[in-house]
Amino acid sequence: MHEFSFQNPTRIEFGIDKEKNIGRYMKAFGAKKVVILFGSDRIKKSGLFDDITTSLRENSIEFTECSKIKSNPVLSKVREGIAIAKQFGADSVLSIGGGSCLDSAKAIAAGSLYDGDVWDFFTGTQVTKALNIFDVMTLAATGSEMNNGGVITNEDTKQKYPIHGFSLFPKVSVINPKLQTTISRDYLVYSAADIIAHSIEGYFTATVQPELINLQIEANIKTVMRTTEQLLQDPMDLEARGEFAWAATLALNGITYVGTAGFSYPNHMIEHAMSAICDVPHGAGLSVVMPAWMTWYHNRNPKQFQRFAKEIFGLSTAEQSIEALRAWFNKIGTPTTLGQLNINEHDLKRVIDNAAQNAIDWQMSDVYSRQVIAGIFDLAK
Amino acid sequence: MHEFSFQNPTRIEFGIDKEKNIGRYMKAFGAKKVVILFGSDRIKKSGLFDDITTSLRENSIEFTECSKIKSNPVLSKVREGIAIAKQFGADSVLSIGGGSCLDSAKAIAAGSLYDGDVWDFFTGTQVTKALNIFDVMTLAATGSEMNNGGVITNEDTKQKYPIHGFSLFPKVSVINPKLQTTISRDYLVYSAADIIAHSIEGYFTATVQPELINLQIEANIKTVMRTTEQLLQDPMDLEARGEFAWAATLALNGITYVGTAGFSYPNHMIEHAMSAICDVPHGAGLSVVMPAWMTWYHNRNPKQFQRFAKEIFGLSTAEQSIEALRAWFNKIGTPTTLGQLNINEHDLKRVIDNAAQNAIDWQMSDVYSRQVIAGIFDLAK
Repeated sequence: MHEFSFQNPTRIEFGIDKEKNIGRYMKAFGAKKVVILFGSDRIKKSGLFDDITTSLRENSIEFTECSKIKSNPVLSKVREGIAIAKQFGADSVLSIGGGSCLDSAKAIAAGSLYDGDVWDFFTGTQVTKALNIFDVMTLAATGSEMNNGGVITNEDTKQKYPIHGFSLFPKVSVINPKLQTTISRDYLVYSAADIIAHSIEGYFTATVQPELINLQIEANIKTVMRTTEQLLQDPMDLEARGEFAWAATLALNGITYVGTAGFSYPNHMIEHAMSAICDVPHGAGLSVVMPAWMTWYHNRNPKQFQRFAKEIFGLSTAEQSIEALRAWFNKIGTPTTLGQLNINEHDLKRVIDNAAQNAIDWQMSDVYSRQVIAGIFDLAK
Repeated sequence: MHEFSFQNPTRIEFGIDKEKNIGRYMKAFGAKKVVILFGSDRIKKSGLFDDITTSLRENSIEFTECSKIKSNPVLSKVREGIAIAKQFGADSVLSIGGGSCLDSAKAIAAGSLYDGDVWDFFTGTQVTKALNIFDVMTLAATGSEMNNGGVITNEDTKQKYPIHGFSLFPKVSVINPKLQTTISRDYLVYSAADIIAHSIEGYFTATVQPELINLQIEANIKTVMRTTEQLLQDPMDLEARGEFAWAATLALNGITYVGTAGFSYPNHMIEHAMSAICDVPHGAGLSVVMPAWMTWYHNRNPKQFQRFAKEIFGLSTAEQSIEALRAWFNKIGTPTTLGQLNINEHDLKRVIDNAAQNAIDWQMSDVYSRQVIAGIFDLAK
């Protein structure tokens, strides 16, 4: 195992109705004024917003709102949230939604205690402090509920970039599987693709990859595949919903990366360009990129691909396993070709340019030249 | 998955020479005066004590010593440590050793901020505060480096009992695989048995046991078995040493218990009596108890035992897998019979009485009557 430092202070509150205690959880951290972040008004119609604000009132926590946070969350909304938080004098942010909402909350939490422009944190400035971050997850995919990162798109520059910092670990994250039963079929399968991407990035690219970590990642992948199929059959299967959600958390809370080294996130690097330029759902973009990238890449790590073939699909070659993964994506209904995403040749050129710039900014351009990236996209046509 | 709360704030510093930074890690928590706890003077001869105290001095941390902490750590030594810590005005404790040393450190940390007798914490009084706890692990087995519990034996009452509390999570734990290469062959295999016991207690007894958690526990068991064999071949295999240590941590840091319910620790409940009365090494006692307990118990959870047989040993029945585990314990050289532990009939009677009292105190006597416990020991003869 490679040397590592690991610390993850987030408290997870997992279970039915846990969101009804959110005020109590927050009060323990001294919360008095909170900005509630969410997407659509659906949470008001469903009663979720009422449940949560009732708990806030019972714990004497004042709140204001910042709504209409969208998938592939954008910088302009983050800036709006920061203005609201500063004016309100907020000490906390509370995200009610999925990873997009929580990632926005994290950027707002950092930006609210910073005099400069929040985009600085995405381009090199270190986050040293942030408002306290809380969340109630209505969708499981990004793992943001138990890590210290987030991703935001700058609409002006078309950069979809990450923010990191120890103070961006949520203080308390609520995972209630029942709240996640209303996710659309599309977003369920996109989420499955996202979790699998988080699992395989390190698995295939790390130069040091302990056996124990391999086994844990394979456990996550098997769990996501099994529970996705169960949920497509029965969206109300709370056992499957819970395991799916926890696999999402484990895939990116650091525990499946300890002792590894030399890994990178090429699928995310490439997909971010697709989301930034064409606003495709992140998971849908990833299910297109992954089989193409694996086809291009597998000869660089043949042993690990053979292992993947055997452990995940009971097959014997890399090629067979890539085909099996593509077939599984097709079966669950997440796209595997650029055509399915309606990305035309003109857009594709811009996507490739954007990805090539990501490769430079993420210090991966030694391997991922514009030509290599274009070649990977050729495999996704 | 059953509802759960999970939070584990311990920072792990894993890698070669990490102990040389211990003063810096501690200074970040405001440490100024620390009691160093350890077992034998071996750490002074090896240079480890010097490395650590050099780092303390460089960070202006004063220290005093409390040594001769033994396996199956005892209450009298904890009381001695508390007296030393109080007199010294310590703000921190630093354990250099394995689980026995760290468990003692935890009890001392709690007792040093308490006016009553520290044994109160083992018999119902809640731990609400403690000195800051740090450790450098020289042996991997108990998982104490990343959990909030410990076990101490009261020599007067012959009770081997646990202490728990959120403030007993170590602030920083150092795991340097190289420091663990000097463990004796005996203690390596006893440790393997202990980690396997931590893995199977929940695995076999939980009434709610999610598939994802099953997979993670099986990953740990496979890793411990593989790396134990590697280390018996080559004690200097640092890769195996590291994975062995991390599997020990994961087996009892809570992550393999989330979403489970209804589990108990019958093997530990029974073994604690053996350690308390006969002072046998904890892991050696466990390798005797486990096959016997499994033989008695397996019909209560046949599906899980069949799964265990298939996943761990590639076998098809519970009986076969129990025999395979016993054979593996024999192969690595940890005992599987009471005779190997030199427990005679007279002592055994006292052990059974003690275990029956544990069963009452641990609220397990509805299942584990004196007669049942005696029957399990019969299977270990």
